[in-house]
Amino acid sequence: MKRFACEAFKKEMRLRVDFNNMMSGFVKGGITPEELEANAAAYEAAAKGMDEKRGSMKWRELPFNQDEVIKAINAKAKDIRDNFDDFVVLGIGGSALGPIAVHQALCHLRYNDLPSERRGGPRLFIEDNIDPERMESLFEVIDVEHTMFNVITKSGSTSETMSQLLLVTNILREKLGDGWTGHVVATTDHSKGNLIKISKEFGLDTFYVPDGVGGRFSELCPVGLLAAAVCGIDIEELLAGAGYMDEICRTHDIWHNPAYMMAALQMKAVEKGCNINVMMPYADSLKYMADWFAQLWAESLGKAVHTDGSTAHTGQTPVKSLGVTDQHSQVQLYTEGPFDKVITFIGVDKYRSTVEIPHAYDSIPDVAFLSGHTFNELIKCEQFATEYAVRKSGHMNCTVTLPEVNAFTVGQLLCLFQLETAFAGELLGINAFDQPGVEEGKNATYALLGKHGYDEKKKELDAAPKKEARYII
Amino acid sequence: MKRFACEAFKKEMRLRVDFNNMMSGFVKGGITPEELEANAAAYEAAAKGMDEKRGSMKWRELPFNQDEVIKAINAKAKDIRDNFDDFVVLGIGGSALGPIAVHQALCHLRYNDLPSERRGGPRLFIEDNIDPERMESLFEVIDVEHTMFNVITKSGSTSETMSQLLLVTNILREKLGDGWTGHVVATTDHSKGNLIKISKEFGLDTFYVPDGVGGRFSELCPVGLLAAAVCGIDIEELLAGAGYMDEICRTHDIWHNPAYMMAALQMKAVEKGCNINVMMPYADSLKYMADWFAQLWAESLGKAVHTDGSTAHTGQTPVKSLGVTDQHSQVQLYTEGPFDKVITFIGVDKYRSTVEIPHAYDSIPDVAFLSGHTFNELIKCEQFATEYAVRKSGHMNCTVTLPEVNAFTVGQLLCLFQLETAFAGELLGINAFDQPGVEEGKNATYALLGKHGYDEKKKELDAAPKKEARYII
Repeated sequence: MKRFACEAFKKEMRLRVDFNNMMSGFVKGGITPEELEANAAAYEAAAKGMDEKRGSMKWRELPFNQDEVIKAINAKAKDIRDNFDDFVVLGIGGSALGPIAVHQALCHLRYNDLPSERRGGPRLFIEDNIDPERMESLFEVIDVEHTMFNVITKSGSTSETMSQLLLVTNILREKLGDGWTGHVVATTDHSKGNLIKISKEFGLDTFYVPDGVGGRFSELCPVGLLAAAVCGIDIEELLAGAGYMDEICRTHDIWHNPAYMMAALQMKAVEKGCNINVMMPYADSLKYMADWFAQLWAESLGKAVHTDGSTAHTGQTPVKSLGVTDQHSQVQLYTEGPFDKVITFIGVDKYRSTVEIPHAYDSIPDVAFLSGHTFNELIKCEQFATEYAVRKSGHMNCTVTLPEVNAFTVGQLLCLFQLETAFAGELLGINAFDQPGVEEGKNATYALLGKHGYDEKKKELDAAPKKEARYII
Repeated sequence: MKRFACEAFKKEMRLRVDFNNMMSGFVKGGITPEELEANAAAYEAAAKGMDEKRGSMKWRELPFNQDEVIKAINAKAKDIRDNFDDFVVLGIGGSALGPIAVHQALCHLRYNDLPSERRGGPRLFIEDNIDPERMESLFEVIDVEHTMFNVITKSGSTSETMSQLLLVTNILREKLGDGWTGHVVATTDHSKGNLIKISKEFGLDTFYVPDGVGGRFSELCPVGLLAAAVCGIDIEELLAGAGYMDEICRTHDIWHNPAYMMAALQMKAVEKGCNINVMMPYADSLKYMADWFAQLWAESLGKAVHTDGSTAHTGQTPVKSLGVTDQHSQVQLYTEGPFDKVITFIGVDKYRSTVEIPHAYDSIPDVAFLSGHTFNELIKCEQFATEYAVRKSGHMNCTVTLPEVNAFTVGQLLCLFQLETAFAGELLGINAFDQPGVEEGKNATYALLGKHGYDEKKKELDAAPKKEARYII
């Protein structure tokens, strides 16, 4: 039996959300329980909205409806682990941020630097930019003949990813002729778009992004699961963790629903002037969770209009931080700066290593006091101390704690933030699942590159006000 | 003759700051030239302040007063390049962010993954956290017998760095006995603190952090220069670039002083409600410049009090972004969200690689239109298109352009941002060079670890309000 089927394991591994330091009893200018009670009707309405829209939020079903997909992914992953030295993801945005975050959380922290026996699978490269220097450098460190590429784009029209596919196809063809198709797996829509066309024409192995699962909500579908499985992560446990959190977060009572409560508190904080949402994990393994969350929060809630068409211009700006590193970079601002941010610390009860700080300079008391402690104690004391200092200076903060970092807790974390985001969207009265604001730049790019049908946009660009020389120095 | 001694090279490589899109003629709610003129007296006063304080801003002299230091660093670097496989920096905050940013900018983008012949020097690891998992993982991928460690802390009292030194000393001693001292270089104050004591006692090779050079302003002293030289970077050119920018930015006329103008514009934007400062380089090589800048800006300007003692709580929150990657993560928020941020794009005229997008799927027009272009064109079109979309949506932005990324232009960039920050501090009337807000957390950590003299702080911590169970779910 898998451990995640055991109730005791689930209970032991349940995440905790501590929002004491969001509340007026703990932080000056904090939120009162009465303020939350006064909003009860809005929370209930939003909770009903979540239930009603559940049918269209297909990403919520991913922990429960992928038995066949999991088998296919694990089989493909085994083949890749056995036969390839390197695994390269071609994708951007949601196709990259989830895979990066989960890999960092659940694999060795220097995974690519390990000898291959130790790794047990290929190195992982996630290519989410088109900088020509970076593209060129990739082929200087991999051998394409021993590399599997996973090209991920739901629409098949992502310029960056399709450009990368063009390059990779060409390089593989030159080396391997028709055999190139054995080096590419496509992850895309099951029927629409350019990539499925290409996949069918050339007989590429293909996984599907289900309907109703948008980029930033796609980590728990094949978009994220294949890379995870290739790196040896237990994707069943990951999904089980997400499913567990989904069940926890079904109650309408925000006092027992961590996702809804976190959203309610953040939106209250916005009303109090906090337009900045800092995420500060105290673990290198969780560093890129903050990047993944930054997309989720920014694209979902950064909206110009409400669903009723009225002007919104909403959206907290997510900020990625890392404890303890950024204590030496950002905490000065967090403690002394404006009261314009909420800091969410992510803590870990039990790290997967214990490292002692040995004795070496016992004659120097200002150094020797560290000896005999562990790095584990040091990082936890610093987290506690930072939380204390931030609270004392009057800045709202909360802490999400993982009992340990494993696939089950990481699955919970992903689900928690997705549900928090969706609930915040309901509270704001905006559509959390579209991204109309990226069209302008996309269309301008098409126009500049001469794509058919963008002549009008090209004219618009040409007619834009000319820059003034005095404003360039 | 070094190329940076040539006037034509300097002129060709001069950075450009384009602030058209900060101005009211280009962006709704932008800044008018009249607003800047109305502030002329304040700018003149701040410029005078910069001149008067020049004597205490010792970091401004680093491009001009390090001839001997450069020789010593280059000699030591040659020795390390010849004799060690790995070079590990132990440092945090300013001791890490500068070295990371400059390495990423000026070395191969997959430097550590290259074969050693190609690299020509050791791999580089910059250890700026104390996560026990990360500490343990380091020793799984390096062989300490072939590793040089550079421990960097000016005060010698940085708990994180000194803990790392204790660990490394112990591991080296076990392997090498007294020979351990040949594997550690210290960078610290010339006379004060624990690290200089240790260095003298054990005869470690030592470089000095000059007086008046604080952590976040220390990249151009041995803190940053040794790692750069070890990785084969021309540190003379880096310093020459910084010196060139320093000269450009001596004029009091903000219309010809890019650093002063950028600061003036940001502070005007703050008055208009922009408490967020996004930096978005369109080059993977410049990705970590945004991290380095985030410390510089946050620690320098995030202050609770003015120099006259009155309440301030100032400080824009810096946000790190990356083009084009974050177009698929943050640009939705930048275009449709609140008018609360300024975006500074960092562009590059000429990338160091050119990569074509080949033909492969000419039968699919929606893909084929990309073929025949280059990744260089694609990234530049996307930068232009994003700038266009952000401006059109009414959000202020500006662009700093490097003719190419090389040591001379990177030196300019570092100096530009340092001077911008210092001038902004003058305009705000705050001390940009201290960081009192980190003391609270530092002292709480000392108290928790039982350092001598922190009993009162321990009592204060014990007396803090107990958390309520209902606020933990």
